[in-house]
Amino acid sequence: MITTDILIIGAGPTGLFTVFEAGLLKLKCHLIDALPQQGGQCSELYPKKPIYDIPAYPEILAGDLTHKLMEQCKQFEPGFTLGERAETIEKQEDGSFIVTTNKGTKHQAPVVAIAGGLGSFEPRKPLIQNIADFEDKGVEYMIKEPELYRDKKVVIAGGGDSALDWSIFLSDIASEVTLIHRRNEFRGHLDSVEKVQELKNAGKINLVTPAEVIGIAGEDRVEAVVVKQSQDVDKEFTLECDHFIPLFGLSPKLGPIANWGLEIEKNAIKVNNALDYQTNIPGIYAIGDVNTYPGKLKLILCGFHEATLMCQSAYQIINPGKRYVLKYTTVAGVDGFDGTRKEAPKAVVKAFD
Amino acid sequence: MITTDILIIGAGPTGLFTVFEAGLLKLKCHLIDALPQQGGQCSELYPKKPIYDIPAYPEILAGDLTHKLMEQCKQFEPGFTLGERAETIEKQEDGSFIVTTNKGTKHQAPVVAIAGGLGSFEPRKPLIQNIADFEDKGVEYMIKEPELYRDKKVVIAGGGDSALDWSIFLSDIASEVTLIHRRNEFRGHLDSVEKVQELKNAGKINLVTPAEVIGIAGEDRVEAVVVKQSQDVDKEFTLECDHFIPLFGLSPKLGPIANWGLEIEKNAIKVNNALDYQTNIPGIYAIGDVNTYPGKLKLILCGFHEATLMCQSAYQIINPGKRYVLKYTTVAGVDGFDGTRKEAPKAVVKAFD
Repeated sequence: MITTDILIIGAGPTGLFTVFEAGLLKLKCHLIDALPQQGGQCSELYPKKPIYDIPAYPEILAGDLTHKLMEQCKQFEPGFTLGERAETIEKQEDGSFIVTTNKGTKHQAPVVAIAGGLGSFEPRKPLIQNIADFEDKGVEYMIKEPELYRDKKVVIAGGGDSALDWSIFLSDIASEVTLIHRRNEFRGHLDSVEKVQELKNAGKINLVTPAEVIGIAGEDRVEAVVVKQSQDVDKEFTLECDHFIPLFGLSPKLGPIANWGLEIEKNAIKVNNALDYQTNIPGIYAIGDVNTYPGKLKLILCGFHEATLMCQSAYQIINPGKRYVLKYTTVAGVDGFDGTRKEAPKAVVKAFD
Repeated sequence: MITTDILIIGAGPTGLFTVFEAGLLKLKCHLIDALPQQGGQCSELYPKKPIYDIPAYPEILAGDLTHKLMEQCKQFEPGFTLGERAETIEKQEDGSFIVTTNKGTKHQAPVVAIAGGLGSFEPRKPLIQNIADFEDKGVEYMIKEPELYRDKKVVIAGGGDSALDWSIFLSDIASEVTLIHRRNEFRGHLDSVEKVQELKNAGKINLVTPAEVIGIAGEDRVEAVVVKQSQDVDKEFTLECDHFIPLFGLSPKLGPIANWGLEIEKNAIKVNNALDYQTNIPGIYAIGDVNTYPGKLKLILCGFHEATLMCQSAYQIINPGKRYVLKYTTVAGVDGFDGTRKEAPKAVVKAFD
């Protein structure tokens, strides 16, 4: 059982900044995310895209925003359960909650903060009849651990940035990379497209277009895929491989959280109007894009504000009756749980000679 | 008469970020500030101090925060009335407001956003009987335009960073700089203290401590100050000079805004709870440290959120009946009023050879 002060569902920008604000109040956080890395959609959907409305950043790449937030919160030593989806929640007699993931990992905390963004990102799956039989037996919809593919034969399907970028990345690791797409044209960043062209010319990526994977073969696990070339209906062939990775994008779903007894409105969780972003279940908060209230804007900077006010309220639940007096970081400095201290340089008092 | 869409009282971080958020909605802003430069207390009180709780900045100097916010909003071409204090407000028949400063500058706008922080910073004045007679006639409590002092004899009084830093700065401009302080010890940043020592040794700054200016002499304007050396009650002398600049710090006062008919609670302006931060007078908003509502935290990051929600509401006042659909900067880009455009690099669509 993992125990913590604030259990955060979702490791996107709002969840990560919660760690920092909670840390200032000496509260520890643990984060659960269905994605294999921190950053939420910033890391998964558009890491190389610039955001222009983060305050005091005229421009910042979404991936860099994640890194900055990780750097800012790391002194408060957050715990992470990544690549697992929060599935069930049970209220305990002592008022705390136990949250269990789809893989059975259990977490206990007096406060739960849902910072789930648009929901957990579920992969879009290709329509292949027996594909479910091969899931985690050679079929993966997301790449969590690239080392899994070392010296393996890999087939990637898809026509966007994910398919391009992972083909490039795995071309150095796998023994063979085949990229299959149902059109001739790929859509992606210029540098990714150029790199794939280069690797294709060098024989390090095999391209099969326009084509689709229509079947999977194998005893216990993937041994081959059946490929149909689109311009010629009759032309099918079998391609030996160890892994088949369809990268057709992710679509966000509120998912199991929708069954936690929370008030839901238009696929978002209702919170009391901006007082502390608590839901209809005391002790469970919803912050960032996942919540809704009159005047709500789904912006990252709003999630930062909501996280900050939420932590003050959580402090009261965790330290009943104790009064917290807001201290400014410029004045009080920041004490990390790892023993580090940040503080403004002290003024000197000196008489002149 | 200066006209604009949103008239912002206060050019601190919250006011500056309002320019950006308003700009995204194609609304123009003009800012009034009693201080001679942008940034509010970040620039005036602690430009060299680090802030640790700006989201995604593990550390940023308050002065740099101001620069970043100026850079972020400059494409929306804000207007500024600096060094003037908003004094009176009059509601017009058409629903707009006219705000007049203490220097008589008039501004008209359909929406007023008070982002006044802790209030307008008023200088602490030394207790010298006739000092009011010499204000703006050689006595200045703030330095707005350093060139005013070129080749002049300047007396600065004070023992903190402002007195040290301006003595250093003016030692290159004025013909003579005398720094007077009632104690022997100065309190300031190490590098400022060291620099003053150096300039004193080089004969570029005269130091008189412990001492006080107790009188001012002159016909129409300052011609000399009377200095009393503290350790010897009888020892007074007259020092010829063109300017006397007491830098005894600034203290924030809500000031004339307190008489605008707004609901005030504990020196802050009450707003409807976090819906759009409107005050009891429709069309007048209060955002950032100047406002109060249940759960309010006086943090810069909260001001950013409040500014953003406020702009949405202001849009409705300025464009009645028109619906605004939130666009993400990552998707839609940012069109500056100066003709510049920022946008994410486009994905390319390409077939491989």
